[in-house]
Amino acid sequence: MRRTSATVKEPRPRAQPNPTSPSERLFATRQHSLALAAPLTPEDMVVQAMDDASPTKWHLAHVTWFFENFVLKPHLDGYRDFDDAFNYCFNSYYEALGPRHPRPKRGLLTRPSAERVFAYRAHVDDALRSLLSSEKGQSTEVTRLIEIGINHEQQHQELLLTDILALFATNPLKPSYQSSPFEVDLSQPEPLRWIDYAGGIHRVGHASDEYCWDNELPPHDALVHPFRLADRLVTNAEWLEFIADGGYATATLWLADGWTAVNREDWRAPLYWEKTDAGWFQMSLQGLLPVAPAEPVAHVSYYEADAFARWSGKRLPTEFEWETAALASGARHESIETGRLRPRRAASGEMDRPKQLFGDTWQWTSSAYLPYPGYRPPAGAIGEYNGKFMISQQVLRGASYATPGGHSRPTYRNFFYPHQRWQFVGLRLASEID
Amino acid sequence: MRRTSATVKEPRPRAQPNPTSPSERLFATRQHSLALAAPLTPEDMVVQAMDDASPTKWHLAHVTWFFENFVLKPHLDGYRDFDDAFNYCFNSYYEALGPRHPRPKRGLLTRPSAERVFAYRAHVDDALRSLLSSEKGQSTEVTRLIEIGINHEQQHQELLLTDILALFATNPLKPSYQSSPFEVDLSQPEPLRWIDYAGGIHRVGHASDEYCWDNELPPHDALVHPFRLADRLVTNAEWLEFIADGGYATATLWLADGWTAVNREDWRAPLYWEKTDAGWFQMSLQGLLPVAPAEPVAHVSYYEADAFARWSGKRLPTEFEWETAALASGARHESIETGRLRPRRAASGEMDRPKQLFGDTWQWTSSAYLPYPGYRPPAGAIGEYNGKFMISQQVLRGASYATPGGHSRPTYRNFFYPHQRWQFVGLRLASEID
Amino acid sequence: MRRTSATVKEPRPRAQPNPTSPSERLFATRQHSLALAAPLTPEDMVVQAMDDASPTKWHLAHVTWFFENFVLKPHLDGYRDFDDAFNYCFNSYYEALGPRHPRPKRGLLTRPSAERVFAYRAHVDDALRSLLSSEKGQSTEVTRLIEIGINHEQQHQELLLTDILALFATNPLKPSYQSSPFEVDLSQPEPLRWIDYAGGIHRVGHASDEYCWDNELPPHDALVHPFRLADRLVTNAEWLEFIADGGYATATLWLADGWTAVNREDWRAPLYWEKTDAGWFQMSLQGLLPVAPAEPVAHVSYYEADAFARWSGKRLPTEFEWETAALASGARHESIETGRLRPRRAASGEMDRPKQLFGDTWQWTSSAYLPYPGYRPPAGAIGEYNGKFMISQQVLRGASYATPGGHSRPTYRNFFYPHQRWQFVGLRLASEID
Amino acid sequence: MRRTSATVKEPRPRAQPNPTSPSERLFATRQHSLALAAPLTPEDMVVQAMDDASPTKWHLAHVTWFFENFVLKPHLDGYRDFDDAFNYCFNSYYEALGPRHPRPKRGLLTRPSAERVFAYRAHVDDALRSLLSSEKGQSTEVTRLIEIGINHEQQHQELLLTDILALFATNPLKPSYQSSPFEVDLSQPEPLRWIDYAGGIHRVGHASDEYCWDNELPPHDALVHPFRLADRLVTNAEWLEFIADGGYATATLWLADGWTAVNREDWRAPLYWEKTDAGWFQMSLQGLLPVAPAEPVAHVSYYEADAFARWSGKRLPTEFEWETAALASGARHESIETGRLRPRRAASGEMDRPKQLFGDTWQWTSSAYLPYPGYRPPAGAIGEYNGKFMISQQVLRGASYATPGGHSRPTYRNFFYPHQRWQFVGLRLASEID
Ligand SMILES: [Fe+3]
Ligand SMILES: [Fe+3]
Ligand SMILES: [Fe+3]
Ligand SMILES: [Fe+3]
Repeated sequence: MRRTSATVKEPRPRAQPNPTSPSERLFATRQHSLALAAPLTPEDMVVQAMDDASPTKWHLAHVTWFFENFVLKPHLDGYRDFDDAFNYCFNSYYEALGPRHPRPKRGLLTRPSAERVFAYRAHVDDALRSLLSSEKGQSTEVTRLIEIGINHEQQHQELLLTDILALFATNPLKPSYQSSPFEVDLSQPEPLRWIDYAGGIHRVGHASDEYCWDNELPPHDALVHPFRLADRLVTNAEWLEFIADGGYATATLWLADGWTAVNREDWRAPLYWEKTDAGWFQMSLQGLLPVAPAEPVAHVSYYEADAFARWSGKRLPTEFEWETAALASGARHESIETGRLRPRRAASGEMDRPKQLFGDTWQWTSSAYLPYPGYRPPAGAIGEYNGKFMISQQVLRGASYATPGGHSRPTYRNFFYPHQRWQFVGLRLASEID
Repeated sequence: MRRTSATVKEPRPRAQPNPTSPSERLFATRQHSLALAAPLTPEDMVVQAMDDASPTKWHLAHVTWFFENFVLKPHLDGYRDFDDAFNYCFNSYYEALGPRHPRPKRGLLTRPSAERVFAYRAHVDDALRSLLSSEKGQSTEVTRLIEIGINHEQQHQELLLTDILALFATNPLKPSYQSSPFEVDLSQPEPLRWIDYAGGIHRVGHASDEYCWDNELPPHDALVHPFRLADRLVTNAEWLEFIADGGYATATLWLADGWTAVNREDWRAPLYWEKTDAGWFQMSLQGLLPVAPAEPVAHVSYYEADAFARWSGKRLPTEFEWETAALASGARHESIETGRLRPRRAASGEMDRPKQLFGDTWQWTSSAYLPYPGYRPPAGAIGEYNGKFMISQQVLRGASYATPGGHSRPTYRNFFYPHQRWQFVGLRLASEID
Repeated sequence: MRRTSATVKEPRPRAQPNPTSPSERLFATRQHSLALAAPLTPEDMVVQAMDDASPTKWHLAHVTWFFENFVLKPHLDGYRDFDDAFNYCFNSYYEALGPRHPRPKRGLLTRPSAERVFAYRAHVDDALRSLLSSEKGQSTEVTRLIEIGINHEQQHQELLLTDILALFATNPLKPSYQSSPFEVDLSQPEPLRWIDYAGGIHRVGHASDEYCWDNELPPHDALVHPFRLADRLVTNAEWLEFIADGGYATATLWLADGWTAVNREDWRAPLYWEKTDAGWFQMSLQGLLPVAPAEPVAHVSYYEADAFARWSGKRLPTEFEWETAALASGARHESIETGRLRPRRAASGEMDRPKQLFGDTWQWTSSAYLPYPGYRPPAGAIGEYNGKFMISQQVLRGASYATPGGHSRPTYRNFFYPHQRWQFVGLRLASEID
Repeated sequence: MRRTSATVKEPRPRAQPNPTSPSERLFATRQHSLALAAPLTPEDMVVQAMDDASPTKWHLAHVTWFFENFVLKPHLDGYRDFDDAFNYCFNSYYEALGPRHPRPKRGLLTRPSAERVFAYRAHVDDALRSLLSSEKGQSTEVTRLIEIGINHEQQHQELLLTDILALFATNPLKPSYQSSPFEVDLSQPEPLRWIDYAGGIHRVGHASDEYCWDNELPPHDALVHPFRLADRLVTNAEWLEFIADGGYATATLWLADGWTAVNREDWRAPLYWEKTDAGWFQMSLQGLLPVAPAEPVAHVSYYEADAFARWSGKRLPTEFEWETAALASGARHESIETGRLRPRRAASGEMDRPKQLFGDTWQWTSSAYLPYPGYRPPAGAIGEYNGKFMISQQVLRGASYATPGGHSRPTYRNFFYPHQRWQFVGLRLASEID
């Protein structure tokens, strides 16, 4: 994944909500990746659905390579590479770390086998255990790097699920990642309500002692104008209205680039939707299921989110509007460990704070993904984690049902190109205050 | 071009610096377009250098079509179309005004001939004269639309030059648009100096009574952090150092998308540069001439500007930093009517305000081209002028040597995609205050 | 064009049917090119409809360049180039003659102007006149090269018309090259009849003293099996039946590559056909006119011709079947000088020989364009004329209404890729004898 | 694969050299496919190296689908599909048999698993056993179809190896399919000798009672001119000379399309060649090994073969020259069952007949792949096997080291596009007799 921690000078006290040690969290994270791969065959793990996606096996190896290159090689004396060739195979995009296997060809790597990648993981885990039980393993720098490695692997855990869905969606057999049968709730959503915010100068960006990525830094003042935010995500029911009203056929609702995409790609509905004689279905981690009206819409591009907002007479929030509201709400997300890999309908009942901030879908904002004032990427190869992607992308806020615990915070910045739809992405409306 | 006037309700008093009547300015503008085309043959006027560019003849007809469709058809009783087919041929991108000839095929329109386009212009000019001499022609709405039409045609005047250079640059004969021989000044630039700005909450966006585009509106408060701005543009001499230092071959200087572009397009220097036995030359409106060290670099993409800034240890300014500094400077541009179609070296001597704000090259900013808070496009087809392009582009500020008078103001927002280089575009550096 | 004369050692007596001198024929040919360009404006002459086509001006200059490089430079003492840059601009594909302007960018050459190309032509004509009036101009070699140059220019005369139609067909004004109004004959064709041929060992390839291209050589024996040939070309009426019967929607009628092309290009009818409320129309050199049932179908690809033949339960003839039948018929074509730039319906009445062999449309054969046994391209750059195109193309026989006189002979081999349709191309059916 | 049996009316006596029953040969063939897959992991079997190639698993399933659809469904009463979805998944290109999974996406089919494909094979084998032990299984039609199915599966056995090499060649670990270490013979080849043939009218095409494909039919007379044929294949040593002499950099040696391919694809050597500090290596089924001078060159396109022949002052043989010579030689190939998956150097010593006709590499001919006179594809879906590919491809003759026994005969026609290089393809020179 494309992020890294800041180059803060002072040690960052670990005040994780879950009071386990770094080492426990490290190996729990490492273990969780394997658990996510458990429902998959070696064949499922090797194939790449499309250029933007990566194979499961590649994810599993790459996060391991990350620990090997950023933690073990510089800090564990006498560490021996598991396999020299892996630096070429599993470097994602770090120019500073040498040449690498081309991204669109990750799915051709039938060798090393999944089995050998598991051995690679075990080899690196053993070395990490050695390092952490040594004195050097207690250093600030190692602690910082381990923390980055954990967060990096967690980001790939979400991508692993995103990419598996992309793969299974191309399969005529429509396999389920999660075999447990789902009772799809076909009831209608409750009405959307609006929450007003006063605006003003707000401190944005990450300022606490908890872990964050460099792109959340530095914390700084931002001027937020008064705004209004929807209390919940846009639902499938609302999206069906958009479709029925000719949303995909009305040029004037769209950004020019969006309209080009609609016509070039022949978009008529969100990604993974299929119209059948029995109505609209959507491919999901639980297989091909009827579209549930009250669930948040997922797998829409920025172009679609923007067109929907225009059709609604509203707009998307800026990233600082979203952050302000999220900070005010105090919401946190129950982690992916709940095991329900599917967005939920908004909780019933009126509330004075937004629902579904975390844990259902990522939410497009109208903000471009750009550096904060005074941003500097960390020194070294790790500096390539986030900074070099700060162009032509839009910020998403929140977290999806597939986002690991610990990645749900008001300041977190996710980012995708406006045409991309394969991530678990939806939207929340905003507007001016009349 | 892609801009439109604001949807202000009250009439906008005309306080043009040059105290001529709207009618005089209209016909002077119309006449100036013909003057710009005068050095060209009908053959030069019909061809399209590439998809992004348009033929001269198309520009001349399209701006005329604009008056016909936005002014004459709705407001001149009994107006008769010059030719029914022209709505299809010369609509640029207004979805609300019906189907249109595909943009990449504008250069295939050998018919209507240039001669017939000139007749079209005369026909529309006559009708505009009739309208303006009638009572209805004095209405607020007509006055507003004429003003938009003038500004629209002026924007195309710059594009006409941009696109002619693109065409002539592909020609092995390296023709000159401006035949007057140029003595290229090969002396070195003076050292760059820095000017500090305090930051604070500033009013940005357009707030005076003068004409502006809708994308400069509404005026609003913005928080600007303290910053430092270069007193002049980056020069060719500095760019040659960047090249000599391996700038185009060092991955870590580049945004990821930029690095991809460098390799895909095999960029080794700015657009129109050619290395010869006698050193670097650049194709210009005066033909192929040696690169002048003290002239501002031109024809660089955002990716290149950003990489150069990173190599310099600096950054690009935000659009509001630029606007703040420009407002403070009080600078205005002498218009294109000076006839010197070439950027000038920065004036000698130390100044307490930035040089070369207007009239040399457009200047990339680090800001994405997005709507201002509360932005609403005007009603009707004219609303497509600017708003639908607000994604994936970067803002440029200032004005080039080819920008007509009246388009040089601190709030003016130009915009291009980060890979585009054929416009007269350069850069100015900025940085934090240490 | 892509052909050249043979490397025969002995002088080839000039036994042209039209008993004029080589010099007269040369300048008549040169003059005829200008006559073909006369209906066009300089704008029409500069633009390139698509990569496969060339601008009129380019054709006029290239054939001149051909004389300059193959005749004047080697054989006229003291010949001075008209313009050094033209070798780069107007070399088509002769690798042996140095680098050249890229083919898809021929349409960007607004300079040199048409006027200057006319001056170029005059300059070269003058030099040719000097040469021909000198002793050296009477040499066998010069005579041979002049003959090649004439034939080359004539081939480009046809292409000039082909390419102008391609250009005008993209124009929403649907201009006519030939302004004279046409009364389109809407009557039905007469029934098709079959002519049987016995087969046997036949001498094929060019064996007389007349001019021919190297690809017609050497003459050699070929074994032709008994076959049956249609007495006329396939008509638009028959093609309309094919369309009505779902020809373009029936996969099993098509070669695999053809079916891919049908779907990729969305072919539903021949090139230049448009379905209107008043039925099918076809763009032609006389503008957009109703499809005439009895006229031969034109502008079909090999894939379409082959699918039509399969749908008919027939096949296309081989090139030697066609040649055998043409030789037996003794037919010759009245030249393009008739001025009727349009295929004609087949003559009425039963005949014992095929109609429409020459002068209506070229006719796809089932033969691949490959060298004859013992074929050797001529020495030198001229050897690139034909030989290097002998792959992946199909042979066409006959001649179209746009083919100049002197290019209609039984042994003549034209060639295009199976997907190409912009030439004046139709088909004639053949079959086994039951 | 793309071939089918002839529509002969009478039963074709089985005179196989190896005197086993059809049933024995069927199950031996079925078993052999599994043996070929044995060295591969499930991961190796699922991935598709490129659009032209197919995954091993897909090959294994497709040949099974072929038996299911062409034999079992029409002829085994009460046969139950193994899985309905497989018709969609494993139909290759039979338009008459319904929609199918897109070819370039075959590698995305992680499900069904390899294991399930093995179960599919067992299910179909059982059903075939039932059919063959029934009376209906003895019918001429079933016997004919079983024979086609065997031959079809054998063709895919070769493709399976071709495609595995393509896959492994993309892998940075350079895996070996065949692990047994090879002693590469670095000695030089013996000189090439020429054999003269008299020409005349020859019977070509398949005329015996043995099995053949429809594209070898009907047998017919062909006129072959006197020619000369090389006694062995072109070697790597000779190809190295071609490279050293600038073969890949000399435009005039190449067909125009070939030269375009050289530059677009940056060809500098045959496919799978890599230049290292230790000289040229080539990826092979035994891994990355030094180029052996005396081995036949392999993995060259038609364009390269043609350019090499021109550089040699020779040409490629026509398919009938090759067939004539092969018939005269009486050669047959020892089958793939030898297990040596690598071309061999030509046998030592002078012979009066060509060496290496079968069992080393396929051999490009100068003949286009077109139907024989009177060719008719078989009725029904099976008619799509070969006929619809008869355009734009060139015929190859002989057989490679990976070609199963029973596919080496003088009349056999293989075919590829001129740019394709991933098959085991080389060349043999020919020339006129002086
Ligand atoms: Fe990563
Ligand atoms: Fe415009
Ligand atoms: Fe030519
Ligand atoms: Fe097959």
